[in-house]
Amino acid sequence: MAAWGERLAGVRGVLLDISGVLYDGGEDGGTPIPGSVEAVARLKLSKLKVRFCTNDSQKSRRDLVGLLQRQGFDISEGEVTSPAPATSLILKERGLRPHLLIHDGVRSEFDQIDTSNPNCVVIADAGEGFSYQNMNEAFRVLMDLEKPVLISLGKGRYYKETSGLMLDVGAYMKALEYACGIEAEVVGKPSPEYFQLALKEMGVEAHEAIMIGDDIMGDIGGAQRCGMRALQVRTGKFRPSDEQHPEVKADGYVDNLAEAVNLLLQHAIK
Amino acid sequence: MAAWGERLAGVRGVLLDISGVLYDGGEDGGTPIPGSVEAVARLKLSKLKVRFCTNDSQKSRRDLVGLLQRQGFDISEGEVTSPAPATSLILKERGLRPHLLIHDGVRSEFDQIDTSNPNCVVIADAGEGFSYQNMNEAFRVLMDLEKPVLISLGKGRYYKETSGLMLDVGAYMKALEYACGIEAEVVGKPSPEYFQLALKEMGVEAHEAIMIGDDIMGDIGGAQRCGMRALQVRTGKFRPSDEQHPEVKADGYVDNLAEAVNLLLQHAIK
Repeated sequence: MAAWGERLAGVRGVLLDISGVLYDGGEDGGTPIPGSVEAVARLKLSKLKVRFCTNDSQKSRRDLVGLLQRQGFDISEGEVTSPAPATSLILKERGLRPHLLIHDGVRSEFDQIDTSNPNCVVIADAGEGFSYQNMNEAFRVLMDLEKPVLISLGKGRYYKETSGLMLDVGAYMKALEYACGIEAEVVGKPSPEYFQLALKEMGVEAHEAIMIGDDIMGDIGGAQRCGMRALQVRTGKFRPSDEQHPEVKADGYVDNLAEAVNLLLQHAIK
Repeated sequence: MAAWGERLAGVRGVLLDISGVLYDGGEDGGTPIPGSVEAVARLKLSKLKVRFCTNDSQKSRRDLVGLLQRQGFDISEGEVTSPAPATSLILKERGLRPHLLIHDGVRSEFDQIDTSNPNCVVIADAGEGFSYQNMNEAFRVLMDLEKPVLISLGKGRYYKETSGLMLDVGAYMKALEYACGIEAEVVGKPSPEYFQLALKEMGVEAHEAIMIGDDIMGDIGGAQRCGMRALQVRTGKFRPSDEQHPEVKADGYVDNLAEAVNLLLQHAIK
């Protein structure tokens, strides 16, 4: 691999994944990953632009930011790209009235959306809300539509909480896709439109931006397909086998966000 | 299409799907499809061999047969090929100790199976048992195995109950396949091994056998790939679009089992 100086040359903006990079979630609210609070603070003191780009679809942006602030992170709502507000916008633009299979924690993001007489289904990480009954209800709504539209907030396979690995929305998206013989539209990483939204909100071109994440497919592969660079941290859902992934090779692997920020402050634009 | 006489010539044995052909299931036990009780009786009085071949994995064979007998069907346990006993046999042969994600109604079929320290996961149509917690538990068992083995009792997309369409085990199989990056082994239609088991138990060669089912992929496509003929009934989960399916074309479409039996008694071997 080339030297870090070469790999990080010209980086002007940094997209940070949240879960597994800043903190590990959990029933108690989760815990910050050691060194990440300080790393974010140092990054924001630098000349680099910073934006948070999450696939968390279980909490409203306000709740997520509040939780991170209580853990000591320097973060505000306006700095976060998250799938629920992005979806809400799409629904309004296309005149879609969703049947919502989502967690109560994120319901406030859809307060302004008409959900009567649904003409599509929106699924997010519903957690315990993924009961058989709720899944069957969403399935029946789709089967009753002439042209079923399924929008999924991310397509993650699983994420890591303090208690262990947790099935993510992608698994349930696949279940509905298979049952109905359809393909979902994904709002969230690794969808190119979603990365482009985050880049636009940060005001940096893809070739000048770098993604830092723990998900080899969603964060690393997705960002690279958009022309960005990407570093994988060895925290969160990282598994050693990711470093020998058959399809995706990160521009670098680092132990954690603190190491990534050290390297960026040393080698990205001064 | 050729005349019925030509299409049914040389048929000596009939495999009958149960749900959607004999009866529509439901919370109250379901109801027989009009004409099916008499059709089975007439078939069994003929020279044709008859066997029931189901993917029902929510009930033990004993409970399923009891339910059908109470509805008036002439059927006994020894005449039924069903996925739970077939799986139980496979587990014993391969020394597999399953984590079971199944309905309580079928648990008795696994009474003789060691489930301590699991080295595989078996999923069946668990119905309400497909809670997030149960799915996540099965997922974690698979992720902890060096070589994850997932056995699925059928891979149906949905079935029909009196209350409407119901998500079947296939959707949940796909969810676990995606989350773990693995492929399940299917015990049930349309697996060729499963059809061959039913044919062997009936004592008829594939080219002399015909399948009667309501599932265009699982029953019709699966049986045809094994060298059998297959008729689709317009009952159960049948949808009009099945008759224009891009990949699978039945050897005939009939309104219900009664019509299928009329044709068979007229045109199959006398």
